[in-house]
Parts: sequence; C-alpha cells; structure tokens
Amino acid sequence: MAQARKPQENELMEKIVSLCKRRGFIFQSSEIYGGINGFWDYGPLGARLKWNVRELWWQAMTSRDDIVPLDASIIMHPKVWQASGHVDTFSDPMVDCKLCKARFRADQLHETPCPRHPSKMASECEGEKTEPRAFNLMFKTTVGPIETEENIAYLRPETAQAIFVQFKNILETSRQKAPFGICQIGKAFRNEVTPRNFTFRSREFEQMELEFFIRPDEVVERIAGSVARLDEAADLSAPQKNWGWQLWHKYWVEERLCWYESIGLPRDSLEEYWQTPEELAHYARATVDILYKFPFGTQELEGIAARGDFDLKAHQEASGKSMEYFDEEARIRYIPHVIEPSAGVDRLVLALICNAYTEETVPNEKGQPEQRVVLRFHPRVAPIKVGVFPLLRNRPELVQKAREVRDLLRPHMTVFYDESGAIGRRYRRQDEIGTPFGVTIDFDTLGETPELKDTVTVRDRDTMAQIRVKISELPAYLLQKLR
Amino acid sequence: MAQARKPQENELMEKIVSLCKRRGFIFQSSEIYGGINGFWDYGPLGARLKWNVRELWWQAMTSRDDIVPLDASIIMHPKVWQASGHVDTFSDPMVDCKLCKARFRADQLHETPCPRHPSKMASECEGEKTEPRAFNLMFKTTVGPIETEENIAYLRPETAQAIFVQFKNILETSRQKAPFGICQIGKAFRNEVTPRNFTFRSREFEQMELEFFIRPDEVVERIAGSVARLDEAADLSAPQKNWGWQLWHKYWVEERLCWYESIGLPRDSLEEYWQTPEELAHYARATVDILYKFPFGTQELEGIAARGDFDLKAHQEASGKSMEYFDEEARIRYIPHVIEPSAGVDRLVLALICNAYTEETVPNEKGQPEQRVVLRFHPRVAPIKVGVFPLLRNRPELVQKAREVRDLLRPHMTVFYDESGAIGRRYRRQDEIGTPFGVTIDFDTLGETPELKDTVTVRDRDTMAQIRVKISELPAYLLQKLR
Repeated sequence: MAQARKPQENELMEKIVSLCKRRGFIFQSSEIYGGINGFWDYGPLGARLKWNVRELWWQAMTSRDDIVPLDASIIMHPKVWQASGHVDTFSDPMVDCKLCKARFRADQLHETPCPRHPSKMASECEGEKTEPRAFNLMFKTTVGPIETEENIAYLRPETAQAIFVQFKNILETSRQKAPFGICQIGKAFRNEVTPRNFTFRSREFEQMELEFFIRPDEVVERIAGSVARLDEAADLSAPQKNWGWQLWHKYWVEERLCWYESIGLPRDSLEEYWQTPEELAHYARATVDILYKFPFGTQELEGIAARGDFDLKAHQEASGKSMEYFDEEARIRYIPHVIEPSAGVDRLVLALICNAYTEETVPNEKGQPEQRVVLRFHPRVAPIKVGVFPLLRNRPELVQKAREVRDLLRPHMTVFYDESGAIGRRYRRQDEIGTPFGVTIDFDTLGETPELKDTVTVRDRDTMAQIRVKISELPAYLLQKLR
Repeated sequence: MAQARKPQENELMEKIVSLCKRRGFIFQSSEIYGGINGFWDYGPLGARLKWNVRELWWQAMTSRDDIVPLDASIIMHPKVWQASGHVDTFSDPMVDCKLCKARFRADQLHETPCPRHPSKMASECEGEKTEPRAFNLMFKTTVGPIETEENIAYLRPETAQAIFVQFKNILETSRQKAPFGICQIGKAFRNEVTPRNFTFRSREFEQMELEFFIRPDEVVERIAGSVARLDEAADLSAPQKNWGWQLWHKYWVEERLCWYESIGLPRDSLEEYWQTPEELAHYARATVDILYKFPFGTQELEGIAARGDFDLKAHQEASGKSMEYFDEEARIRYIPHVIEPSAGVDRLVLALICNAYTEETVPNEKGQPEQRVVLRFHPRVAPIKVGVFPLLRNRPELVQKAREVRDLLRPHMTVFYDESGAIGRRYRRQDEIGTPFGVTIDFDTLGETPELKDTVTVRDRDTMAQIRVKISELPAYLLQKLR
C-alpha cells in the first residue's frame, strides 16, 4: 500500500514553491528582469486552476435566484475612496531611519533586518527613527493628460465598494427584492510594505466578493413579529422570514464552509475564527474569518463580516444620492444591511496546492519502492482532467487510436495527450500536476484480447487502481467522476 | 409576420446606450459621484454576457493541444515597457493652450471645442498653442513605500508583453513544440486623451490575446524543402509543415473570423482589412484588422499581426536572457516568430449588443400591431438562456410546478424565473434582454388536457413560435438548442 506523508512544514513550502515553478503553476512576475516584489504570474497550469476556482465560485453565486453579478472597473472616481474611508484610514504606520534613510513598518521594526547591519533588527540598530507616519496602501495614479492633485485616482484596494456604489442601479434594473446579493470577481491592489509568504500576501491580487443585502432587524420584526435568535435556528440551510443579521451571517459562514469542502479543502484543514469585540472593525457587528492551515501558519482565506448599513450610508451621505430601498411587503423605506463574504482567489489557489501536495512511497513497475509526488486536487479544480496515452509511441495504430480517444474526450473536459517516455513516467508526470485520471490505449484496445477490444485502461491518480472501460462509455464514466 | 428593422444609425446608438443602462448591461463607473470619463461597469446582464464571451474564447484557445494559457500581473517590472518600446513611443502628441491652459490632442484640435468658447473649435480660437509634446498613454504608479523615480511602475497597456516575458518559463514547463501558442485574457489600461463611442474606446479595458510562435521561414525551408506560398494553400484549416509566416497569418485570420461567426456576428457584419505597407507598424510584416460595422462607424474588433521575432528579440537584448528555442526536428536554435491575434473584450461585447438590437412590429395577443425590442443574441452568448413562467402567479399549483421546472433546468443553464405581470409582458421583458427561450407552465401542464399533462410551452424568442415539450425532455431539448 502507498505510504503517504506530508513533509515537515519548513521544507514543505520550499517544495511547493519549487513545484509551482517547475511545472508551470506560478512564476515570479517579470522574472527575466529580476522580478518585481509582490507580483506573480500564473503559468499554464496555474491559470487553468485559477480559472476553475473562479468558475466554481461564479456558478455557486450566480446560479441562485437571489444573487446577480457585477463587473466593475478597477479605477473609480476618487470620491468613492474618500466616502469609504480608505483615503483617510487605509494605511500602515511607517518610520524612516534618519541614518540610512530606509523606511520600515513601525509595527515590524523588531522583525525587519537593518539594511546596513543585516545581523541586527531595525529596532536594535543605532539609527534614530522618525515618528510613525501613516502610509496609505492604495496605489495612486493620474487620469487624463494633466498630472494634478484633482486628477489623482486610485487602483481599487477591494472590489466591494463598486458594489455599494452601483447598488441603486442594480436594484432598479435587476428586479431583486431584499434579501438579495450582488457578487463580483476582480483584481485589487494594495501597496503592501512587505509582501510575503509566496502568493499569500501580494500587491496585486484577485477577490471574489459577495454583498448580501438584508432587512434591518427592526424591519424583520415588523414583518415576522420577532427576530429569530441564533440558538433558535432549526435549519441553517433554509432561510426564514424571521432571520435577522445574526442568522444571515451564520448562514453565509456555513454556506462558504460547505463550498470550500465541495472543492476539496477538508473541514479539518479549515478553522472558523470569530473576531473578538476588540478586533472588530468599528463598522462591523460580527466578523468570522475562515482560516486555512498553511505550512507557514494558519491564515485567512475569507472574511465574512456583518457590516450593518455602514457602506451604503457612507455613500448616500457623500454622494447625496439615496441608497434607500422600498420594501413592498413592509411598506417602508430603509437602507439595507449587508453581510459580506469576501474571499481571495490567490490565497485559495495556494491553499488548494498546499492541501493537494503529497509525497508517497509506492512500488514501481518492478515492485521496488519509489517516491512519487501527487497533487491530490479535487477533480472539480484539477487543471487537467485526464491524460491520454498510447502505450507505445512507435506503433501508429496505438497512436491513431489514442488520438481518437483524445478527440472524443476533448469537447467535455481538459485533456493532456502525451506519447513520450515509459508509461510509468507519464503517469508520474500527471500525478505531479494533479490530473485525476489517466487513460491508456494498449494492444488489448486494438483487439489483441478479443473481449477487451475497444476498451481502455483508466488509472485513478490517488489509488493507482486501473480498470478497463469501453471507449463508448468513457466520456460518461469520466464526467460522472468529475462532477 | 414580424417586420424587423434597424433604426437609423444616429438614433441607434442612443437607443442601445439607453437599453444598456435601463436593463443593467452597462453603467457609467462611479455614476453617483458624477462618473469618471473612460471607465465603465458591467451590470448583472453585461457581466454575464462578458463572462460568456471570455469563456467561449478561452475554450476555443485552451482546448487545443497547441495552446496553453497564462494569467500574468497587470503591474510588471518597468524594464518590460522600456524593452517593448512603450516608455519611449507609446504616446499621443499634445498641445497646451497658453490662454486657457487646456490640453488638447494635437491631431484633434479641429474637432475639439474650445472650453472658453464652445461654439468654436480649439483650432479656431484666439489662444496661442504650444508646440506638440509627446504624452505617454501608460498610467503611472509607484510601487513600495517610497515615491521615487526608480519605483515608478506602469499599468500594462496590453497583455501581450507578459507572454513574451514569460516565454522561456512556459516553454520549459509546458512541453510544447513550435508551432505553439500562449493565450491570455486580462485587463489593460490606456490613459486615452479622449475616450469615446460608449465602451469602444475606454481607459480601462479587457483584452484576449494569443501569441502563436512559429518557425522562421528559413527553418521551415530547411525542414520541408520549401515554404508554401499563399496562393498554394489547398486547405487553410489543416496546418502543414511547409507553412511559413504568411500561411500561419492567413490561417489565424480565418480561424478568428469563424469564431466571430460562431458566436453570432454574421460574416457580412465584419470586414477584413489588410493594412497597407505605409500603415504597418515598423515591426509588423502584415496586419489584418477584423472590423465590425458599428453604428458609429466600421471599427476594429481585433488585429492579427505577423510580428516576426521583434518582441522576443527586444526582451532578449534588454534582459540578457536567451529567448531561443531548440528545435529538435530542425536541430537548430532560433528565436521563434510570432502571429498575434489580439481582440478586445469590451468592443466585442458592444458589437454583440449592437448586432443583436432589433425593433419589430408584431401583432400582440389581441392581434393589434405592437412594437417589440429584441436582442437577437446567439444562444451561446445570451446572458440568460431561458425564462420560466407560471401562467398565473395566484395559482399555487402553477407556481409550484414552475419552480420545479426552474430547479430542473438550473444545473444546466442560466434561468430567470418570473411570475409577475401578464405573460405577454414577461415574454417582452425577456426579448429585450435576449433570452432565447421562454418556458410557460399552464393548466395543460397540470393535466387539464390529459394528453398534454407534464408538457410545457417553449417559446422561441426570434420566431415567437410556441411548441409543447415534455418536461422530462426539456433539459435535453434546450441544451441541444444552446450548443
């Protein structure tokens, strides 16, 4: 039997980073020019993996009756970020060293090496530091031909604000009624002082955000007579009219946890962390972080915040445009409250790779122990779904049949066709990139054993078990396993 | 019979822009703050339409054996843009008015109104103008905590350069052999002086680009004995070993034209424009523009350029890193040449909407002539695939059955469930957003006419013909029509 093991945490990240580069999941941006800190490119397999993650989130959200999508611009009017508070408060405290002129995050002085004496930390060196000053994390640019203060714009530091800013337009055109949600996938940018942990904290990243607008508790009470308490909920998967923000919040925590499980992150690799009252942002009534146990520590994949009416109210005040919703059933106007599940695409892709990475000692074709690296991706997210292999490349009848099988499968799934090297090596190459199935065309396929004619071997990545399947039944067989 | 007509061009764009806003296809970015010129947001229907366009392009590209995807960062090392020539030459000529301080594009003075006397053009007013100066179209920003010259970075003005910069990494990890391609979808930014024509020329936009790397003609000759001439090609859909850049270029023009047809742009709405030698960029050997007949003029959707080895060579020189490829068959090293089909997502979405927009006079339920607006989207791109309607909302048995049908279809396609208003109005609402099919649950569905029990009415958007289909056969019936 296979003996699976996870390498020790300290060596694990190194192996993952190395695999990501070697097999084309993730490259450093602009590597040939020495790279640019905090920016990453997804190679052929990483781009497919990321595409699948987006697709699954998009489907989970937009196939609901009560959620509609938005795709807004990255650069918005600067007043958006004044109203949201980002211009004033989205900053890190920075100090300058008067001696060497380097700039540090004030709260990281004790963990950042001094540029002149790297054996010392910046907090220990002799250089006097300035008082901390706020350094805004938004990337600035100028829109239009003249570079003046009034033409400054920002790259959005989050996708969420666009949803609030377009709330009224969407409400008026989509025929939705509260409670309902608006979701969006897109890039966001933060000028992090110290990007770190591979793609986990980068300066350019992608978000998947939902703003789910609900009735304020007073309105729920008016309609339903009372507001359900958390401990009263019989079934969290079946929303009820008497749900207030607490139940909706808990509902989305559960929904999101189920989704992570559905794409292959086991429940015990995740943690649900309820922020303490001291940790909560001033506008938040409750925030739950969904954490993943990365090799470099247990870190946030998604935050699910109950934000009240903070955002819509702020934009109503700043723009002078009403953000109120007329509730036909309650016969009242109000600013809806919001539950915000906000997830990072890049973090999730990294979690999926970390979770999938396994080393095993397995017997090779001669029965001798051999190490194999396997990415045990859930078939739903795997970048390649099936490898198709003619047993031998120098037998035209095998190659021709294998190409027919490839063409048969291609309309239904991502296929990698490979004819070079021993079949064992071809399996290993697919194991290492997480391809869940391998299909081999051999002499039995061609009729050497008459009762096996027009069947192929299907090998399972995880168990390495092989079974024979009729070619005519192959697409349906695989599709059912990929669901 | 329906009488279809296209409104006059001058009123057509107005109607399209109005429909886009009214039904939630496209909104002005940051509208509640007065908007920001050159930036647009896609509302619920526009976001779905755009998603479908991306998906279809992605499938057409990445389902091929010889194309792999990339998903690179928007901000790259500034040296990328020095090497590519964008820092030096990607600019418009600008002049300032010494009187009113306004800035104009030097080549548009005669068509831009003077800000002080809007009845005059800037070229006619009394203000003296400065000599033209180059204004670079790249958006600038600063990466890292210190705003210095050396920390300046740019928002990419095109996605293509990332493909060249990562060429070697992808070559080494993807096991591709020339000819092969690398494709990418992503945002790009150009600080256009005068954004115009709705979303056609905006400052933030999305590109779908393929770089298809081929053997230089000398290498083709070495392997195949000679290079096929354009007029010799028997079958442009079946690549041959003796194809040089001219045939590969023509091949991609044909492929792309077919793709546009496959998503609903008729061949006669498109034009194929071969740039003259004078128009060609200095690095291009040939460029074909695929144009669409927009109401505001015939304009480019995609450019397909034969760029030789210009880009890879430029990055090899600037970075000092080899961009050479070892061709096993030719036993020679060389820098591949490239064919670049480069398309704009936003332009295509706009073309699809313009092409789909139709006004018709049709008889209403009482036989009287009535106008309807229809978006005749190809079912492949339509944001919503099917509307599901209970005939009456106040009959619980109809509503319940309709919801069952909705749930039956939902795993397979985007469904819009609607129970409010007369059935005719519900059809019209779906016509106006281009939903190809409407499914109505009526009393016959419930068994009023016994032989029609468990059948529904399926109405075709374009012909308005209605047929009855068994519920059990409905998903397969619709899926086959949506293909």
